[in-house]
Amino acid sequence: MPKPLNIGMIGYGFMGRAHSNAYHKVNHFFDLQLQPVLKAVCARDAAKARAFADTWGYESVEPDWRKLIERKDIDVIDICTPNNLHREIALAAAQAGKMILCEKPLAMNSKEGAEMAAAVEKAGVANMVWYNYRRVPAVTLAKNLIDEGRLGRIFHYRAVFLQDWTISTDLPQGGLALWRLDVAAAGSGVTGDLLAHCIDTALWLNGGIDRVTAMTETFVQERKHNLTGKVEPVGIDDACAFLARFKNGSLATFESTRYARGHKALYTFEINGEKGSIQWDLHDLHRLSYFDHRDEGRLRGWRSIHITDGDHPYMSKWWVPGLQIGYEHSFVHQVADFLNGLANNQPASPTFRDALETQKVCDAVLESGRTAQWVEVG
Amino acid sequence: MPKPLNIGMIGYGFMGRAHSNAYHKVNHFFDLQLQPVLKAVCARDAAKARAFADTWGYESVEPDWRKLIERKDIDVIDICTPNNLHREIALAAAQAGKMILCEKPLAMNSKEGAEMAAAVEKAGVANMVWYNYRRVPAVTLAKNLIDEGRLGRIFHYRAVFLQDWTISTDLPQGGLALWRLDVAAAGSGVTGDLLAHCIDTALWLNGGIDRVTAMTETFVQERKHNLTGKVEPVGIDDACAFLARFKNGSLATFESTRYARGHKALYTFEINGEKGSIQWDLHDLHRLSYFDHRDEGRLRGWRSIHITDGDHPYMSKWWVPGLQIGYEHSFVHQVADFLNGLANNQPASPTFRDALETQKVCDAVLESGRTAQWVEVG
Amino acid sequence: MPKPLNIGMIGYGFMGRAHSNAYHKVNHFFDLQLQPVLKAVCARDAAKARAFADTWGYESVEPDWRKLIERKDIDVIDICTPNNLHREIALAAAQAGKMILCEKPLAMNSKEGAEMAAAVEKAGVANMVWYNYRRVPAVTLAKNLIDEGRLGRIFHYRAVFLQDWTISTDLPQGGLALWRLDVAAAGSGVTGDLLAHCIDTALWLNGGIDRVTAMTETFVQERKHNLTGKVEPVGIDDACAFLARFKNGSLATFESTRYARGHKALYTFEINGEKGSIQWDLHDLHRLSYFDHRDEGRLRGWRSIHITDGDHPYMSKWWVPGLQIGYEHSFVHQVADFLNGLANNQPASPTFRDALETQKVCDAVLESGRTAQWVEVG
Amino acid sequence: MPKPLNIGMIGYGFMGRAHSNAYHKVNHFFDLQLQPVLKAVCARDAAKARAFADTWGYESVEPDWRKLIERKDIDVIDICTPNNLHREIALAAAQAGKMILCEKPLAMNSKEGAEMAAAVEKAGVANMVWYNYRRVPAVTLAKNLIDEGRLGRIFHYRAVFLQDWTISTDLPQGGLALWRLDVAAAGSGVTGDLLAHCIDTALWLNGGIDRVTAMTETFVQERKHNLTGKVEPVGIDDACAFLARFKNGSLATFESTRYARGHKALYTFEINGEKGSIQWDLHDLHRLSYFDHRDEGRLRGWRSIHITDGDHPYMSKWWVPGLQIGYEHSFVHQVADFLNGLANNQPASPTFRDALETQKVCDAVLESGRTAQWVEVG
Repeated sequence: MPKPLNIGMIGYGFMGRAHSNAYHKVNHFFDLQLQPVLKAVCARDAAKARAFADTWGYESVEPDWRKLIERKDIDVIDICTPNNLHREIALAAAQAGKMILCEKPLAMNSKEGAEMAAAVEKAGVANMVWYNYRRVPAVTLAKNLIDEGRLGRIFHYRAVFLQDWTISTDLPQGGLALWRLDVAAAGSGVTGDLLAHCIDTALWLNGGIDRVTAMTETFVQERKHNLTGKVEPVGIDDACAFLARFKNGSLATFESTRYARGHKALYTFEINGEKGSIQWDLHDLHRLSYFDHRDEGRLRGWRSIHITDGDHPYMSKWWVPGLQIGYEHSFVHQVADFLNGLANNQPASPTFRDALETQKVCDAVLESGRTAQWVEVG
Repeated sequence: MPKPLNIGMIGYGFMGRAHSNAYHKVNHFFDLQLQPVLKAVCARDAAKARAFADTWGYESVEPDWRKLIERKDIDVIDICTPNNLHREIALAAAQAGKMILCEKPLAMNSKEGAEMAAAVEKAGVANMVWYNYRRVPAVTLAKNLIDEGRLGRIFHYRAVFLQDWTISTDLPQGGLALWRLDVAAAGSGVTGDLLAHCIDTALWLNGGIDRVTAMTETFVQERKHNLTGKVEPVGIDDACAFLARFKNGSLATFESTRYARGHKALYTFEINGEKGSIQWDLHDLHRLSYFDHRDEGRLRGWRSIHITDGDHPYMSKWWVPGLQIGYEHSFVHQVADFLNGLANNQPASPTFRDALETQKVCDAVLESGRTAQWVEVG
Repeated sequence: MPKPLNIGMIGYGFMGRAHSNAYHKVNHFFDLQLQPVLKAVCARDAAKARAFADTWGYESVEPDWRKLIERKDIDVIDICTPNNLHREIALAAAQAGKMILCEKPLAMNSKEGAEMAAAVEKAGVANMVWYNYRRVPAVTLAKNLIDEGRLGRIFHYRAVFLQDWTISTDLPQGGLALWRLDVAAAGSGVTGDLLAHCIDTALWLNGGIDRVTAMTETFVQERKHNLTGKVEPVGIDDACAFLARFKNGSLATFESTRYARGHKALYTFEINGEKGSIQWDLHDLHRLSYFDHRDEGRLRGWRSIHITDGDHPYMSKWWVPGLQIGYEHSFVHQVADFLNGLANNQPASPTFRDALETQKVCDAVLESGRTAQWVEVG
Repeated sequence: MPKPLNIGMIGYGFMGRAHSNAYHKVNHFFDLQLQPVLKAVCARDAAKARAFADTWGYESVEPDWRKLIERKDIDVIDICTPNNLHREIALAAAQAGKMILCEKPLAMNSKEGAEMAAAVEKAGVANMVWYNYRRVPAVTLAKNLIDEGRLGRIFHYRAVFLQDWTISTDLPQGGLALWRLDVAAAGSGVTGDLLAHCIDTALWLNGGIDRVTAMTETFVQERKHNLTGKVEPVGIDDACAFLARFKNGSLATFESTRYARGHKALYTFEINGEKGSIQWDLHDLHRLSYFDHRDEGRLRGWRSIHITDGDHPYMSKWWVPGLQIGYEHSFVHQVADFLNGLANNQPASPTFRDALETQKVCDAVLESGRTAQWVEVG
């Protein structure tokens, strides 16, 4: 029987649900030496925390995150708060010797991120950032193919993350559900929220980025603020696009926006190599498109691979061929990898250190958006 | 807090996992008055039952299904056995006053099915058959659109369920994982396994079928039998196609096979009406294709609707727009509907009585396959 | 320089345009020993024939098809009339020793077709039927792959031809543009018009059909007739579906209708073999979908092959890779093959004899529609 | 009967074929007051010019383009030469009072382009540049929708033109078929060849561009030169990506490469507006994807519009609904529009003046590629 690993979660929003679901499911599908136990959830609003705990089976509610961190019966702190609280919580948790799972982006900026990475390393605690898309089986398969050299020399990388939910000027900013529009809570707009995912995947698949040139825009410049009740300037980037050069000589374009009518969460990437190419799309996350130049000439074509077979990453754990999994499963896989990493003493990626690299690219992108210059990634 | 509803499950295979997962998840996502409690799992192989119970958190193991049915602490019997055991278990469970959730197809044939429907009605126990695809949100939306008259008069229905997993002649028949190839356990081949799904959906969306003409084939006529160890004749239909006329005057084609290379579980249906058409595909179950003839002429086209919005059936319970759910969620929805049905005293469909209609069509199809005549649905 | 081959065309409708365009273009793109010369067009309505001749560059107009056949300066008679005139014209043309290109279907029924095939063979004149879809490069490639054994043993064939242009009850029947709805001129409805295409392709790709069972329907049973001005019964089949067994042991479903809302000319076929599968779709005729089971397991997927490369059939004659051709090019290819066949003394398929086989299947299908019995193909 | 318009074509390569085909076909399908007559083709290689003239029916061959321009029987000079000859020929033709149809890009750079635009305007001769993709019916429909305000305020434009034909280092540069790789003949690489198409469409659909920042790359830096026989530096850009800001406030990304394995000629654009979005793709040029936010919420989806109906631009001239046209037809449409423009005294776009705007953007892009700065479009 697996040994318990006690989770203390801070925050109870969308990500709180996704993580809690993963903790519940992981031992049903993966054979693991550890089993997460939902020990406590922490949030300022006691009634909401209580309701969340009831729904998800948390054993207790803890209103003060500092107290949660001090509790002896907590092994892991899971940070699901807005971005502006990541640093303070992480530093305290590291000091208290807790393992830390932190929502993405790691921090408000790379300065904070560097502090956090140093802190967990100094404390020697297991740590991971929830860049969950690495664990979509199709994306993991892409990684495997690239590592095996199936694409050969890489020429191009392109990624977009397109949404359309903030087009209305009536949408307010700030507060519980809309902190992502409030620069004080989020640090940035689409760059930290969406491009950070694209960058994390890209660094993982294609290595480091040398430099970028970016363009940002805030289409709606004032919105009512839910915390002040007043119309306030909007400080975030509504849209951001950038060009990049990777260390391996490949060229890239990245774009993200919340003003692309018709797209809800269209994260796509494509990578073109000498021998083959790969495409993936979050709206059909259970498929991978693959072009193999070594196929016979007249029969070359993009293959739409339905990633539901037992020989696809993670898929032997689920159902039978043809039956797709969804978004939430990427979190289950990430928990499984984290637990296996603990058992085998192998850190599961991305660690805080890994995620700091993404933060540096975000910083360079935002700086380039301000200065209209190419910026070297720090 | 919801009241417990004690589940006793018989069988622990693929469907046992799908149901258990649904019981675990349903209260995390749906606000319900009842909560399934995994009280006992029953299977002849004690070690396997024990392992299954440990993985899924069943409180006890019960080797004899008759004892399970007698237990006072069991409210619901969930039948996940091969088809040839459905009838006996269901009759006993009904007599014991248990609610019954039965895997599809309801029975080996409509004679058995009629007995079972009569038994649960006589006993006055809640009953439902796991035709889970009705609860895929895209399929439910299709039902809503048809009921609203968005398609107008229906002219055509076509459905296929294509697989390719039994092409190899080396595949044996019979035993635990392969009872679906053994006519003694399954009753039929693709007709009861796959076409039954297609028929259930079709009856639900398009009403009753008057008559059919069918063609069946067994491509591999002998396979080693896992229970006898000997090469035995194959008694199931490997492939089956039939033409049908619906009561509403529409024409239909149905086809199923396990010899369609390249398709794992490609259940698709299309329905053409005077005002519009609908297509759905299990390989991308989170999408619905819809053609609306009332759109402006030059702008008419098939819409690919990404069924992940809050105004799509069931989807407000899950994540945010753009983030897809998968196969397993259809079972969660079915459990939610069953529990809500209990709370509201509204039977959740398909009941045994509903599923009997599918059984009658299957019987007519198989008879037509034998006689090469059009057969009226009984 | 190529030698002239003088064409006399009878009829000037949609097919007259498609053929004339092909005659004009073929020598621009194919290196041939013969060049079609548009010598005369024949039609009862002199003004319309004149206008057609002016537009397309026919040297003369001939109101009486019998005179056209007698003309010494005509080498080839191209029959583009309604179906009920094919036989008479073809018999006369054969007797006059003319080569004959006949629009599909060959005849009103297989009795007529047999007469016609016998006549051209007796006369020893080159003959061909315009089943143009064989010459869509993707379809030709499918034929090549099957002949090479890339699919292995064939299990399944399925084809549909779906349209939606006759749903309105206000549409009249008969006369120039609508003779296809008039059973006296067309012989049948979708069976001869659309399924004939599907059957021709199927016989070519998959060999002979043993027997069929069919279902036909006329959804709109009375329409105003353009020739009589009165509401008349509709004699054609609006929809037809049938099951078939091929001589090679494979099973098939075929369906055609003009009541499938949302589809304009959706001719699709799929063929499943032991080693691979193929799909094609007239709405994207420049693509072929191909599944190769010999691909590495985790990388298997349907390939969407963009049939625009120089090593695809016919495509070296056109543009450069990536640039698609369209519907009309299939006729150009058919003319090119016919001219090459003449030069090499190799009959280009489908000959009248080949097309008679399709006619026999159509007859069996229509008979089965009437009798509700399986019918052996004559 | 239409009046003749005498064409003198200079060059006989890929574009010579595309134009000649268009001249031949246009009067078969469009009802026009003018009819192109293929009077003469001009090329230095007399034998090849002769063969081309024979194939395409040119009445004469003229080895010296200056003589062609002087000929009284020529009305229109069609420039199909490599880019480095456009200016000289155009200036001479304008001076001789000839109408001019010039292949794209207009010139080697905007300085040349400005001279050419001034020359044709001074001479008062009809002029047009072959940016043929404007006349793909789906693209024309996109233009119509935007002009009608169906998309509302535009937020985003993105375009790529992806090819993969120069990945091999063995491919030489220069000479007849490969002048596009020779900077002396082409002026630039993908920027003038492919991005020029993207920019022309973008300016047409979305208005002017204020400024750009670009990144260019030459992956293969030396290739054998067909004219010198020696390995020479490659002067063209193999790949180019740029960010842009349009005058209407929208943001754009553009990218082109000949190193995107798996793509032959994948020109795609997408435009996102407040009320709707549009996508188009050259690999399926007969389709337009359209998202209309005014559709009922739960039924919103991208519509795949099959652009083959009579109410789609240009399509009433061709076949029947469902039957697609191809690449070459865009040239036919452009000729038809040019001829109608002459008849109605309305210049057909893009004129030299229009195409100069594209040239200015190309210049700014290439300058930015060199300087790594944002560059204002001149």
